[in-house]
Amino acid sequence: MTIATQLAERIGHDKVLGDAETLRARRYDQWCVKHLRYWRGEHVPAPGIVVRPESVSDVRQVLLFANEHHIPLIPFGLGSGVCGGVEPTPEAILLDMGGMASVRFIDETNLLASFDAGMNGLLAEETVASHGLTIGHWPQSIGISSVGGWVSTRASGQFSTAYGNIEDMIYAVEAVMPDGNVVTLGKAPRAAAGPDLRHLLMGAEGTMGVVTGVTLSLRRAAPFRQCSVFYAKDMEAGFEVQRRIIQADWKPPVMRQYDGREVRRLFKDFQRDGQSMLLMVHEGPRERVEAEMPAIAAIAAAAGLEPGDPAAAEQWLTRRNHVPTWQDMFERGYVADTAEISGTWTQIGDIYNDVIRDLNGVDGVINASAHSSHVYRSGINLYFSFAATFEDTARMEPAYFECWRRIMEATARHGGGVAHHHGAGRLRKPYLAHDLGAGGVALLRRLKAAMDPNGIMNPGNLLPDA
Amino acid sequence: MTIATQLAERIGHDKVLGDAETLRARRYDQWCVKHLRYWRGEHVPAPGIVVRPESVSDVRQVLLFANEHHIPLIPFGLGSGVCGGVEPTPEAILLDMGGMASVRFIDETNLLASFDAGMNGLLAEETVASHGLTIGHWPQSIGISSVGGWVSTRASGQFSTAYGNIEDMIYAVEAVMPDGNVVTLGKAPRAAAGPDLRHLLMGAEGTMGVVTGVTLSLRRAAPFRQCSVFYAKDMEAGFEVQRRIIQADWKPPVMRQYDGREVRRLFKDFQRDGQSMLLMVHEGPRERVEAEMPAIAAIAAAAGLEPGDPAAAEQWLTRRNHVPTWQDMFERGYVADTAEISGTWTQIGDIYNDVIRDLNGVDGVINASAHSSHVYRSGINLYFSFAATFEDTARMEPAYFECWRRIMEATARHGGGVAHHHGAGRLRKPYLAHDLGAGGVALLRRLKAAMDPNGIMNPGNLLPDA
Repeated sequence: MTIATQLAERIGHDKVLGDAETLRARRYDQWCVKHLRYWRGEHVPAPGIVVRPESVSDVRQVLLFANEHHIPLIPFGLGSGVCGGVEPTPEAILLDMGGMASVRFIDETNLLASFDAGMNGLLAEETVASHGLTIGHWPQSIGISSVGGWVSTRASGQFSTAYGNIEDMIYAVEAVMPDGNVVTLGKAPRAAAGPDLRHLLMGAEGTMGVVTGVTLSLRRAAPFRQCSVFYAKDMEAGFEVQRRIIQADWKPPVMRQYDGREVRRLFKDFQRDGQSMLLMVHEGPRERVEAEMPAIAAIAAAAGLEPGDPAAAEQWLTRRNHVPTWQDMFERGYVADTAEISGTWTQIGDIYNDVIRDLNGVDGVINASAHSSHVYRSGINLYFSFAATFEDTARMEPAYFECWRRIMEATARHGGGVAHHHGAGRLRKPYLAHDLGAGGVALLRRLKAAMDPNGIMNPGNLLPDA
Repeated sequence: MTIATQLAERIGHDKVLGDAETLRARRYDQWCVKHLRYWRGEHVPAPGIVVRPESVSDVRQVLLFANEHHIPLIPFGLGSGVCGGVEPTPEAILLDMGGMASVRFIDETNLLASFDAGMNGLLAEETVASHGLTIGHWPQSIGISSVGGWVSTRASGQFSTAYGNIEDMIYAVEAVMPDGNVVTLGKAPRAAAGPDLRHLLMGAEGTMGVVTGVTLSLRRAAPFRQCSVFYAKDMEAGFEVQRRIIQADWKPPVMRQYDGREVRRLFKDFQRDGQSMLLMVHEGPRERVEAEMPAIAAIAAAAGLEPGDPAAAEQWLTRRNHVPTWQDMFERGYVADTAEISGTWTQIGDIYNDVIRDLNGVDGVINASAHSSHVYRSGINLYFSFAATFEDTARMEPAYFECWRRIMEATARHGGGVAHHHGAGRLRKPYLAHDLGAGGVALLRRLKAAMDPNGIMNPGNLLPDA
């Protein structure tokens, strides 16, 4: 019997798909490189089979089967990943979780909502919003990502500075491990009942098990919202103000600082002499917002920042989730990407300066810029953007990897963290040792070997090559 | 050669202690039961050897040796545990981390402080306080616990409602694993670089490896502090107000609610007709505190709570870390303990009522009471206190375990979490499956087997018996 037949006998023929169109549609997620190869007419491998489970039991059957027969299994949410976490091969089963997309419950008293892992993020948010609640997690990809994907990649949203990253919102994770063990991790508002096992799945990018359900800790929708905007002479001056704000224990949910290049490109009606722009969204109880805004304005003024038009922040709120397609970019002649890293306050200025310089040293690069978007007491992230243009499109891919290498290495050189919230995938795995150290890599390998002794779970992803 | 001789050759004779006095002093931590047995004249086993490492390299040598020879190794911080996490046997090496107690660095710009694991918590706090900073972690045990112990038990402090629990303050964990692998986990303000491996050590209670160093993410000392007090007719009325406060996104760092019995016992100058008392400490920027207090007072008033004298909260601030010794209690004729659990808002009232009823059903019990002290959007903790008195002191230990059993089972019956922040130890391990489920227990065992294949790390602790 073929693998497809055996799987079909276990979970039903309608859930096991081998037609060319389905397989072709699952060749990639949103990673630039695969789209570039496809656009250039190169071969982009498809999975051997696509399985669309409809229940935890289906997932368990597929895992048991794959584990028994040592068949690579690639969990696939809604395919919004941008780091090469999904790289099908003809030997692999692609486990398409998109068919598991139900709301399990919404609890308005305890502010909990539980979803199947394949639930679309925006639908999840809209569902809780109809109850006056919010998840508070707003990744740019919200309309094309799944709640299970948020867990698997350790995602962050645009409102993270007050509301936290996905690990701060996850109440429980349901998952199936390669041995068929079904776990529901996360029982209580908080626990000291051994290591927090939810973290084995968060950020595992499909290498440890399959996330099948997620319960999130919600918030009531904020009753009041205001925006503010300031200009700083350069990035470092703005970083310093953001440091003072967060360390004074003010937490506007959104704090974003764009360098002069990005202000010019993204906020052209609001540019001011090439200055950096810091925009904030303040929300929560009206009394708190009304206390926060003048206090923050005073901190900004004391550091020499000038107030700007809040309409710039409102423009961002309106346009924030628009992303052009990769194909549009290629057609217009360039390859581009964004890369998010983080560093402490004392590292971040050097990281910014070195990365911009190093990117501009890559042949073909026409843009190197950055903004910050997630703020912590100890430091901040940076979101670098680069674009490079070539007559010969064969030069695009090498330039892409060279830009990434320079971002990763300049970040690591100054002691920063090479992966803020998109995950590692195959793109970052050569650089993961900068974050984890040799000891951490060894520990991750040991963990992987324990959870997935047959190495079936998304093989080749995340873990640095030996 | 004896074990002691071999260890001494590896790390030096002065660090390997086998004298009777040293061994006797390491027979127990602060777990009531061991003190009770000792007080009653029962045998309380001592470890075979006490090792006091002075460096990470010493710890590594001891681990490699113990792992090679399959010798049980019990990490020991400053011995403030109350759940039976430390139970020496004559076969075991007790690894006393108290000799590793240095400040590694304090970084006033990035608000980081790094300590050896054996650093006393209060000394750590006082050290950063001299720089105008605070860890913000105030367990009642702060004066007798270590920063490494905070990590290993997943501790919580009294100011957690705003400042979070220890997992929200840990920037990096340095540890030595049984195979001698030295890891430093936690590189950046935030990362999506695979699973967050720090969580393998947090809450592991010495079963996975040895925490040797901790870097904490600090705060600037709050510039302004105020207290407030309210009375509720009963616990449920107070819980409802706490729910509304936290779900409106107000976060006073301290919110504590005592039942009538505890008000009578602990706040006798402030008791009011047997009512429950809710006390709060508000702190942070003055403008925020001044916005928060009237908003919270309005929420409380709308729910029928009556304002009280803030002096009750100030009294708590003064006396909060006083704990009588176990021996004092036994001499006065009773055995007593506290047990912390958590539940969602819809569970917690039933848990409170059932536990109080069930404790009062235990023969000899003269007090059963509770207060809450850690608040979440989804629910709250409860800290139960019980005391039982007997002429025959042999009845104390069985009553102690019966009270614990009833607290754990009533909590589990209503779906709550059986361990909020003291850890599990040997005391709670029979109940851990309520939190983790059978699948979670199996996963924890798999993790343990991978990290510590020879089972040398604190054997018998934490993991439920097979």
